[in-house]
Amino acid sequence: MRELIIASTSTVYGGDYLDYLTEEMAELFKDTEEVIFIPYARPGGISHDQYTAKAAKAFTEIGKKLVGLHTFDNPVEALKNAKGAFTGGGNTFVLVNALYRLELMQPLRQAIFKGLPYMGTSAGSNICGVSMQTTNDMPIVYPPSFKTLGVIPFNLNPHYLDPNPESKHMGETRETRIAEFHTQNTVPVVGLREESWLRVKGDEITLKGKLKARVFEQGKEPHEVESGATLRF
Amino acid sequence: MRELIIASTSTVYGGDYLDYLTEEMAELFKDTEEVIFIPYARPGGISHDQYTAKAAKAFTEIGKKLVGLHTFDNPVEALKNAKGAFTGGGNTFVLVNALYRLELMQPLRQAIFKGLPYMGTSAGSNICGVSMQTTNDMPIVYPPSFKTLGVIPFNLNPHYLDPNPESKHMGETRETRIAEFHTQNTVPVVGLREESWLRVKGDEITLKGKLKARVFEQGKEPHEVESGATLRF
Repeated sequence: MRELIIASTSTVYGGDYLDYLTEEMAELFKDTEEVIFIPYARPGGISHDQYTAKAAKAFTEIGKKLVGLHTFDNPVEALKNAKGAFTGGGNTFVLVNALYRLELMQPLRQAIFKGLPYMGTSAGSNICGVSMQTTNDMPIVYPPSFKTLGVIPFNLNPHYLDPNPESKHMGETRETRIAEFHTQNTVPVVGLREESWLRVKGDEITLKGKLKARVFEQGKEPHEVESGATLRF
Repeated sequence: MRELIIASTSTVYGGDYLDYLTEEMAELFKDTEEVIFIPYARPGGISHDQYTAKAAKAFTEIGKKLVGLHTFDNPVEALKNAKGAFTGGGNTFVLVNALYRLELMQPLRQAIFKGLPYMGTSAGSNICGVSMQTTNDMPIVYPPSFKTLGVIPFNLNPHYLDPNPESKHMGETRETRIAEFHTQNTVPVVGLREESWLRVKGDEITLKGKLKARVFEQGKEPHEVESGATLRF
């Protein structure tokens, strides 16, 4: 029985950290006072303590205590006993590298499949997919594998950006990059725009927030999915 | 005695493939009728034959024959005997993966250090750096290593983009991404804007084209370098 929030971004333009998700978070974590924070994505290279302090402020708003996974002597045990977990954004390569080096990828996956309520934003959402191969991040470290949690049967592209028709830049658009991914891989990709999130309850995956999402499947034209729709592949 | 053109992009806005580089290319490849094309970056997933045909058209303009490296029975030998080589853009992960799988990374590096005139654009420029870790590309395949040719003593960020002050997108800017690279790595990075290229002659590396380049060093403020300047670290 999976219970997940998989969000494109932690912060929407003009908003505060996680403020647009307050209601959904309160519902996801309703059965626990304490949530474990997975700080390894290190946005801007900040320390695990600094990052935990930042995220903890947003959790105070919903009356929850946030505890950094890095503070436990036995993080595997901590994940097994956890009643809630949140992975913040940053660099997906750094996050995935840390989860492998600390041997936490499998324990986290198992905990989520056993029903651990989990929230991810950005890099913390990327790792919910089959692989991290549709991240937008720079490969600033070399992880042992690109495989990730696979707690949803597709990949994500968070912070999805539509092509800008005014642009004179000749770098690839996001859509071109995902099409290139599909020359090498068969896994579907959901382009999740900022302010959008997925709510996973068991086998049901629902698109939430005001915006549509863009779905990419190998050999098909990309198509839009409406907010409120259930995602099926 | 290195002889290289390292260009941000193959095509500038409103232009044709390689047209802004015609003069510089003619000079680099002046001593050979035939140039070897390294097609492995597969932009948009096109075949090696298709990509070679596209690039060959631009070389016809300067009276040179372009031959795909994939057409040789012994590509290592082909690189040893080559009098010129050009690597086109596409996906840097795909390119680096192919160079390792085909055991061409070291032979290409050695040939360049022995004086093989080499041109790269985009992904083909990325691989000139110490590592491919400042690419903008998606990790659509998992290469055996991120280390690249190291024929220049720094990394590149091709298609360098300045932050857009109007943007409401919350994804990281290019400058933020490179700053995150420097939380994990000490290698300097040159952000090369489209229409810019580096001309390497022996130990001298000169910025060419109309625009400035942006230089990032660990622990320092980024700074701009003027066209015509020699790059030193």
